[in-house]
Amino acid sequence: MGSIAPQMAELDGSHFNITRSTTLRDVPLPGSPEELSHSYCTDHMVTVRWTVGNGWETPEVKPYQNLSIAPTASVLHYATECFEGMKVYRGYDGKLRLFRPDLNGQRLNNSSQRSSLPGFKYDELKKLVAKLMQIDGPRWLPKDRPGSFLYIRPTVIGNGPHLGVQVPKEALLFIIAVPWPDFTKTRKTGGLRLFASTPDTIRAWPGGFGYAKLGANYGPSLLAHGKAQALGFDQILWLFGDDRQVTEAGASNFFLIWRNKETQKLELVTAPLENQLILPGVTRRSVLELVNERLSKKAVGNLEPLEVVERTFTIGEIEQAAQEGRIVESFVSGTAYFITPVAMIRNNETDISTLPENGEPAGYAAQIKSWMEAIIYGKEAHDWGYVVENEEN
Amino acid sequence: MGSIAPQMAELDGSHFNITRSTTLRDVPLPGSPEELSHSYCTDHMVTVRWTVGNGWETPEVKPYQNLSIAPTASVLHYATECFEGMKVYRGYDGKLRLFRPDLNGQRLNNSSQRSSLPGFKYDELKKLVAKLMQIDGPRWLPKDRPGSFLYIRPTVIGNGPHLGVQVPKEALLFIIAVPWPDFTKTRKTGGLRLFASTPDTIRAWPGGFGYAKLGANYGPSLLAHGKAQALGFDQILWLFGDDRQVTEAGASNFFLIWRNKETQKLELVTAPLENQLILPGVTRRSVLELVNERLSKKAVGNLEPLEVVERTFTIGEIEQAAQEGRIVESFVSGTAYFITPVAMIRNNETDISTLPENGEPAGYAAQIKSWMEAIIYGKEAHDWGYVVENEEN
Repeated sequence: MGSIAPQMAELDGSHFNITRSTTLRDVPLPGSPEELSHSYCTDHMVTVRWTVGNGWETPEVKPYQNLSIAPTASVLHYATECFEGMKVYRGYDGKLRLFRPDLNGQRLNNSSQRSSLPGFKYDELKKLVAKLMQIDGPRWLPKDRPGSFLYIRPTVIGNGPHLGVQVPKEALLFIIAVPWPDFTKTRKTGGLRLFASTPDTIRAWPGGFGYAKLGANYGPSLLAHGKAQALGFDQILWLFGDDRQVTEAGASNFFLIWRNKETQKLELVTAPLENQLILPGVTRRSVLELVNERLSKKAVGNLEPLEVVERTFTIGEIEQAAQEGRIVESFVSGTAYFITPVAMIRNNETDISTLPENGEPAGYAAQIKSWMEAIIYGKEAHDWGYVVENEEN
Repeated sequence: MGSIAPQMAELDGSHFNITRSTTLRDVPLPGSPEELSHSYCTDHMVTVRWTVGNGWETPEVKPYQNLSIAPTASVLHYATECFEGMKVYRGYDGKLRLFRPDLNGQRLNNSSQRSSLPGFKYDELKKLVAKLMQIDGPRWLPKDRPGSFLYIRPTVIGNGPHLGVQVPKEALLFIIAVPWPDFTKTRKTGGLRLFASTPDTIRAWPGGFGYAKLGANYGPSLLAHGKAQALGFDQILWLFGDDRQVTEAGASNFFLIWRNKETQKLELVTAPLENQLILPGVTRRSVLELVNERLSKKAVGNLEPLEVVERTFTIGEIEQAAQEGRIVESFVSGTAYFITPVAMIRNNETDISTLPENGEPAGYAAQIKSWMEAIIYGKEAHDWGYVVENEEN
């Protein structure tokens, strides 16, 4: 499955057929209704068609437009679909950057094959995104607005017209770029309020697909998400198993900083990847790597050292830590939400505060976010930043 | 979730805006490439738009055509989609019939709300299907071809353009009709070969959505399905749990007829609905009801009485029954496959024959199928058949 026969064309992000838009759209202002709609895209999109007989065709850049999809198409019936969330950032040095785009390429390749959609050479994805940004970047992320970003959504769908339940024979990879609200600026302060899932609603299961970015992980979760929002919560905290293991929050990874009862040392704890229940977030990985590198051995300012612990942990452990005053901070990470503090978790009838007793986060999330921002906006030279060269000006 | 505020319009299948196709398509012959493609639809389709503000709009009948879908649409990213499988049958009395269409309406309503898509009055669905068949039925299922059918696919998708992960604000219900191969006539004899799933691939889980007809149940299952097909098998037999419970086969419900070791009586065993792991099939329910009514108390011809048993059973029990010569017959049921015998199951390295020792099915599946066909093709008056009145001739 997903392997590419030798005679089939591989995905190639170095040659394009380009059709320019002749009617450029207004670029929405930050905070405008267009930006808040999450539905207003830039002038162009990338599409790459795949067929089982010929493999990947030449990528196209074309004016942003609706897709024409047969009512019988696999994606509309069988959820043969997967996606990535990325951002492109305008740096303070005037350059456009992607953040670790090969990790997104690898994950999309994995997700696509998990969906019975075609695989591809993962490092081609960043070239496709870069081409779109060479064309749309200068106008949509102007150099005089450093510190801004666009959300990038690469997607693979099974768009062949065969209604039989079968491995798709045709697919489309498309990439769109969307002005996106900066939640870290617009969100009300105080931190997220999470609603712990109940046993009758489970997001993912061992042997399932919770580790891949399939559409099938999202739609079925919206019912619980909508109910939680109606109760005034921001996200579901997805629990799993009889012992109510903490997995992930909404579409973000979940982190807790607490003081180990035995060692009295501070730990940054998050769910492990091994059991394949959670998404291997790019931001998650980056948080863990930065903390390991910069905070595990030494204090930083007022922040004492922090040990990274990836392990299964339960909502009961969080509740106990809160009762014992051992919680220092909590946050979620993801591309859409970046790094956002968590204020509390409702578990059944119990509200658990994830803030320390003085009500103020210790400052780890702010420090990690600051390090990440320095990288993505080019204040610090770092190989996690991938520069989009040759912008059209 | 899914409840309809009083001021919002409900789905109404009694009024339509109708646009006729001016270029009618050739009706494909049975066994033709067009029919085998599963992608060649009738001349018209039904669409009904829904918005969170206004509810359901007036249903439209229009020429079959591609859908224009925003690249940001929820259905393409988050699998906000569900469907039904139904058929319309041309009877030997010249009438068109649907089979228990309110069961499909109820299930689509359930599936839609499980997907955070809008609910509707379930008994309107059959009116929408009937309208499409009043127009396309006479030409696509001519009265001089009794015993033929079309496959009907009602589908609900979240087609609003909002890319944020949220409950959809717009949706589209559409219904298409597809000439479909008659598997009971074209399939090679000898019965299906099933490949039992391995613990690293789970179709559904408690607290999930295996009981609803969501796209999210299908796409992620295609990888295993494709691997099994490459090994020469027809379908996956989905097992669940440490004890390897038998749930369902491919997209069909699974039945086994065996002799109970203690009572020496024959049992028709199938997985129960209570744990929400399997789809509550309309054909499954009809099989159980027919057997209960016509076979549980008395013999029919050579067929001795049969007790319906809905309970959790394991692949180990099947293997043991086969070793002890207690298996009489096995089959799957579903709209697409109707009632199809099963010849064997491969479980790990073991091939289990589900045929009796003489190699010939006992004839229960054939008898049940014959009863069903009498109902759907109008040989027997029965309230399970819903006649499409007022065909345009």
